[in-house]
Amino acid sequence: MSRALHTTALAADIAAGLARVETLFDTQLAGEFPAVNELCRHVERYRGKMLRPTMVIVSGLAFTPEGSALRHEHDIVAATVEMIHMATLVHDDVLDDATVRRRGETVNFLRGNETAVMLGDYLISNAFHLCSRAGDPALNLRLGEVTNTLCEGELVQLSRRHDLALDENTYFEIVRRKTAVLVGASCELGARLAGAGSGDVAAMRGFGERLGVAFQIQDDLLDLLGDEATVGKSIGRDLEKGKLTLPMILHIARTHGAERRAALDAIEAKDGASLRALLARSGSIDGARARALAIVEEAKAILPEARRAGSRELLLELADRVVARES
Amino acid sequence: MSRALHTTALAADIAAGLARVETLFDTQLAGEFPAVNELCRHVERYRGKMLRPTMVIVSGLAFTPEGSALRHEHDIVAATVEMIHMATLVHDDVLDDATVRRRGETVNFLRGNETAVMLGDYLISNAFHLCSRAGDPALNLRLGEVTNTLCEGELVQLSRRHDLALDENTYFEIVRRKTAVLVGASCELGARLAGAGSGDVAAMRGFGERLGVAFQIQDDLLDLLGDEATVGKSIGRDLEKGKLTLPMILHIARTHGAERRAALDAIEAKDGASLRALLARSGSIDGARARALAIVEEAKAILPEARRAGSRELLLELADRVVARES
Repeated sequence: MSRALHTTALAADIAAGLARVETLFDTQLAGEFPAVNELCRHVERYRGKMLRPTMVIVSGLAFTPEGSALRHEHDIVAATVEMIHMATLVHDDVLDDATVRRRGETVNFLRGNETAVMLGDYLISNAFHLCSRAGDPALNLRLGEVTNTLCEGELVQLSRRHDLALDENTYFEIVRRKTAVLVGASCELGARLAGAGSGDVAAMRGFGERLGVAFQIQDDLLDLLGDEATVGKSIGRDLEKGKLTLPMILHIARTHGAERRAALDAIEAKDGASLRALLARSGSIDGARARALAIVEEAKAILPEARRAGSRELLLELADRVVARES
Repeated sequence: MSRALHTTALAADIAAGLARVETLFDTQLAGEFPAVNELCRHVERYRGKMLRPTMVIVSGLAFTPEGSALRHEHDIVAATVEMIHMATLVHDDVLDDATVRRRGETVNFLRGNETAVMLGDYLISNAFHLCSRAGDPALNLRLGEVTNTLCEGELVQLSRRHDLALDENTYFEIVRRKTAVLVGASCELGARLAGAGSGDVAAMRGFGERLGVAFQIQDDLLDLLGDEATVGKSIGRDLEKGKLTLPMILHIARTHGAERRAALDAIEAKDGASLRALLARSGSIDGARARALAIVEEAKAILPEARRAGSRELLLELADRVVARES
C-alpha cells in the first residue's frame, strides 16, 4: 500500500474503534432508572477529544500486525479510561465550582453538588465494573493503581492550595499523578494488549506520561489565558481555587523584589489581568509553553518503532496536538 | 467440644479475622504522602461495628469445616467491603452536610467538601485495587455490580427528595440498593469463598440483604428519634435533606385529612418535634419498628444450616442486634 492508503486504512480502523468504544461506554451506563440515565446522557455530552481512548486504540493498532484486528479488551480498556476521566471531570467541576463544561452546564451547576458527587461515584464504579468484564485481574490491578495515584495527586494538590511556596518539583509530582499516569496507562495497556514486548510497553507508558504532563501544562495555560467561549469550560479556576500553576511557579522562582511581590499579591487578590501582565513580562508564560514543548519532544524521542505502517507518524502528530490545542 | 467451648473458639477466630482485616485496611491506605495518610487515619477512627466485614468473616467460618482456616481472600473481601462502606460514609456526610460521625468531626466539616469528595474517591479506588489483589475477576465483577447498584440507589433517592408522594415500594427499592446489597454481598461472598453450595450462597445473600434493609429502617428510626450524644453522629438529617423515611411513609399512607396534612406540613417545615408526636400517635413509629423486626425474622427463617458449630447461632444473634442497637 502507498503511504496515503496506509494512512486512510489506519484512520478508518481508529474511527471504527472509537465508535465501538462510544457504544460500549453508553451501554455500560444504560440502566433501569430514567433519572440515572438522564444524568449519564448529560455526561456523554462532555465527550470531546477522547484523548485517552484514542491513545489506547492507536497504541494498540501500532503493535498489532497489519491485517489483524484489535482485541475486545482494547475496547474495554479504552471505554474504562474514558469513564474514569469523565468521573474526574464531574468531581473536578464540584471541586472547582465550575459552571461550564464543553459549552454546556456542569452537573453540579444544573443538579447540585450532591447529585454530581454521586454521579461521579457511579461513573467510577461503572469504570471498574466494565474493566472487570474483561476477566483479566492484571487490568483491574493496574487501573486500580492508576486511580489510587490520580486521587493522591488531587489530595496533595488540595493540601497545597494557597501555598505560595509550592515548587516546581512538587508541581510536576502532582501533575504526573493527577493527569499523566492515566494517559501513560492508556498507551501502555494499548500496546501490552497488542502483544508488544516489555521494553516497548514501558516506552509507550513513558511516551503517554510525558504527553499527559504537557497536556496539563497546556490546560494550565488555557485556564490562565484562554476565554471561556473558545476553551468551552469555566476558566480562571486555578487562581480562584488557589492552585499555583507552572507559569506562576516559574515567575516566583525567577523574579525578585517588587516584581515577585506584585505577582504574589495578584495571586492572593485573584487578580487575573494583573497576573497575566506580570507573568508575560517576566517570560514565565513563554517559559511554561517552552517546557510543555520540550516535554513533547522528549516523548517523541522515546516513542518506539511500531509494527503497523503509519501509526508511529500518527502518534507523533497526536503528541504535537497536545500543546497546539486551544480548547 | 461443649457448646461453650465451640462459642469461645469461634469468637477467637472472628476476633483474629477482624484484626487481620483492620491491618489489611490500614496497610492498603498507607501511602507516601503525610497529608493523605492523615486523612486516612481520620477515616479509620470511623470504624465502628464493622458489620460488613464481620458478616464476611462469620459467613466464611460458617461454611469452613471445623479445624480449617479462612482463605486470604476472605480478609481481602472483608477489608474491601469495609472500605466501600467508609467511602459511602465520607460522601454521605458531604451529601447530608453532617458535622459529626462516630463522636468525631466529619472530614467535610474539618477539611471542606472538596477534600471529602476526593478522599471518598481515594477510598473507592483503593477498595477496587485491594479487591484486585485477590486475582479473582469474579470478585471484582460482583463488587462492581454491588457498587453500581449502591450508587443507583443513592441517585434515585436524590432524585426523589422532597417528594411527598414517595411510596413504600420505592422506599424499599432504594434501601435495597443503597444499603442491603452490600450486606448481602458480604454474606454471599463469605460463604462462596468457603466453598458453600450455590443454594446456601443464595440463601446467605438473601439473609444479608434482609439484615441490610432492617438495618436501614433502624437507622431511619435513630435519625428521627435518637439524640446525637447516644447515636454518635449528626441526626435529623433525613428531615433536613427532604428524605422520606419509612415512619413518615407509613403515616402518610395510613392517615387522612387533618392528621395527614399536619405531618406533611411538619415535613415541609422540617419540624422534627411535631412530626415525632404525630407519627407516634398514628402508630407509624411502632409500625416501622415492627416492619424491621418482621424482616429480621424473615432473614432468620431463611438462614441455612452451617458446617461450623456455633456459627448459625451467632448469625441469628447478629440479626437480632441489627434492630436492637441504639447507635
